Amino acid sequence: MNQTMDTYEGQLAEVVAAVCGTDAGMEEAAWARLDSLTKPPRSLGRLEALAARVARIQGTDRPTVDRKAVVLAAGDHGVVAEGVAPYPQDVTWQMVANFVAGGAAINQIARSSGADVFIYDVGVVSDVSHLDGVEIRKIAPGTANMALGPAMTREQCAQAVLVGVEAARSLAQQGYRLLGTGEMGIGNSTAAAALTAVFADADPRDVVGPGTGLAEQGIAHKAEVVRRALIVNHVAEQDSLGVLAAVGGLEIAMLAGVIIGAAEERVAVVADGYISGAAALAAVALCPPVREYLFPSHLSAEPGHALVMRALELEPVLALDMRLGEGTGAALVFGIIDAACEMLSGMATFAEAGVSGAGE
Amino acid sequence: MNQTMDTYEGQLAEVVAAVCGTDAGMEEAAWARLDSLTKPPRSLGRLEALAARVARIQGTDRPTVDRKAVVLAAGDHGVVAEGVAPYPQDVTWQMVANFVAGGAAINQIARSSGADVFIYDVGVVSDVSHLDGVEIRKIAPGTANMALGPAMTREQCAQAVLVGVEAARSLAQQGYRLLGTGEMGIGNSTAAAALTAVFADADPRDVVGPGTGLAEQGIAHKAEVVRRALIVNHVAEQDSLGVLAAVGGLEIAMLAGVIIGAAEERVAVVADGYISGAAALAAVALCPPVREYLFPSHLSAEPGHALVMRALELEPVLALDMRLGEGTGAALVFGIIDAACEMLSGMATFAEAGVSGAGE
Repeated sequence: MNQTMDTYEGQLAEVVAAVCGTDAGMEEAAWARLDSLTKPPRSLGRLEALAARVARIQGTDRPTVDRKAVVLAAGDHGVVAEGVAPYPQDVTWQMVANFVAGGAAINQIARSSGADVFIYDVGVVSDVSHLDGVEIRKIAPGTANMALGPAMTREQCAQAVLVGVEAARSLAQQGYRLLGTGEMGIGNSTAAAALTAVFADADPRDVVGPGTGLAEQGIAHKAEVVRRALIVNHVAEQDSLGVLAAVGGLEIAMLAGVIIGAAEERVAVVADGYISGAAALAAVALCPPVREYLFPSHLSAEPGHALVMRALELEPVLALDMRLGEGTGAALVFGIIDAACEMLSGMATFAEAGVSGAGE
Repeated sequence: MNQTMDTYEGQLAEVVAAVCGTDAGMEEAAWARLDSLTKPPRSLGRLEALAARVARIQGTDRPTVDRKAVVLAAGDHGVVAEGVAPYPQDVTWQMVANFVAGGAAINQIARSSGADVFIYDVGVVSDVSHLDGVEIRKIAPGTANMALGPAMTREQCAQAVLVGVEAARSLAQQGYRLLGTGEMGIGNSTAAAALTAVFADADPRDVVGPGTGLAEQGIAHKAEVVRRALIVNHVAEQDSLGVLAAVGGLEIAMLAGVIIGAAEERVAVVADGYISGAAALAAVALCPPVREYLFPSHLSAEPGHALVMRALELEPVLALDMRLGEGTGAALVFGIIDAACEMLSGMATFAEAGVSGAGE
């Protein structure tokens, strides 16, 4: 392994080394403040815990996530040649066009949440450079078929992660305080399943689901493709970048980078659904401290997602049986995290409001 | 029973008779549109179902809940004489002062959700008329002790329900399209437990919880108080108003009225937590069609709430272990319902966006 700055892998190692943990003392201060606010102690349950975690990340007991953004990474997957996806590969670029035109689910949900959406092409097969509003960072026109060999080279993979780091840095510098990960890529639930099998130590049959709409027979075939990819590529969990390169995706690698970059910038980041969850697993494997910056969104209807969440030690906030991706679950949770921060930062204490305590 | 317009009970009967069901045909139209939008069919899970229900209520497949409000009803409870609440009764008026000063949890969460808060006094023991921003509709300075006899007379109870109907009408006329119910009243989890025992046909022990913070012994005592109240008052489920008068509360009756008034105005309404859920049970008992206008918020940490939700056939959206009330759970869910409507109303169809369908 070449760890010099001449390589993307070397640059990534530098970034990873710079990521710090969060401020446990500030979380304690936030809990002390939460317990002084005009409500029975802990009566806002996990909303209080969400607020305390943001306090810990931002290093203040008056946290705010006023500016929010979804980073939507798009890339194609060579593994679609195995017939693992019910939609044609063209849907990836067609949906990118739909994102920039504002017609997709994420556009409406993000607007409703007061969040901006940033769309990146890191690996769409088709040329989308004519579309206004797409950040073109294409590393390759799709990954190779992971059932036959590695989806990406290590350098391609590290480069994709760095694109994500750069995106998070840029957004943090623009003042965004809460990021969400979103993705588009026909075939990417197969890559997510392979990554989950490795990083959450699960059987392919337990992590493969219908994705965008496979029937039962298709699901069994998809599990078989995942199993083959894991064997063909001799994946070894301890080599995190090797795993991500072998059975990941360009957009998934970018999202792992967004999570790492957010942590570097002390910005909270919400992992959306199954694909984003797999990216979060990869991010934690590459850079364990990022775990402290991660927030859960919903529990996806895709069966592997529960294993991802368990491995990340995150408990979903929403129970809506969603399975779309695009960052839709993350954007829905933005409002909850915003409310948690407003509550911690804006409520009056018992003393300030002249409200009697219990047993007075 | 006097059912003439000379009595509040007679006026309420007129209101109830005027409430209509929702538009099943429009729900079908909404589902047809949802299935044509650029996402795998049904991939937004229950978010789609929420949108379709609003469409059904509003009679359009392009629903919107742009303007949202929480109706926060405050009232005191004579049953606190039995030692069922850990906080002193003064906290009710002190929190009303906190609400109008903007220092409570609901103020921050509503602001974060883009919702307005309207505070009503229907039965606070103390005079709060000097506080700017409280709508004074006081029917009595607190209820009587339900462990000794009826909490309210039938006429007081009907009058409180009508105050809620009037509040919902007024907000609908001001253009609010989504209402949430919130409450403040020391002792009101005891009333909620008694109502749930009757309307959800449950044992008092299964519907009594810690409320704002009772310890185990206190909970057993509270269950005993509920049992006594049910016996003393000879409650009979089929006489819904009689039940609500005997073991309800002035603010709970008002919230039942808000739900009935919302239905009359074809406005969707979110029941907050346990106390609001008990009000919703009473509203459905008084006026069964209102069921179609009700939306769930979170699952409260208060144990009886799961029984309430089952009886209302509502599945919670949020899992945050909250147990505060004030409408905080309702306001948190406003954003989800808003996103659902934006999604249904704003997304492009496959045809409009030029996106290929499955298997093309």
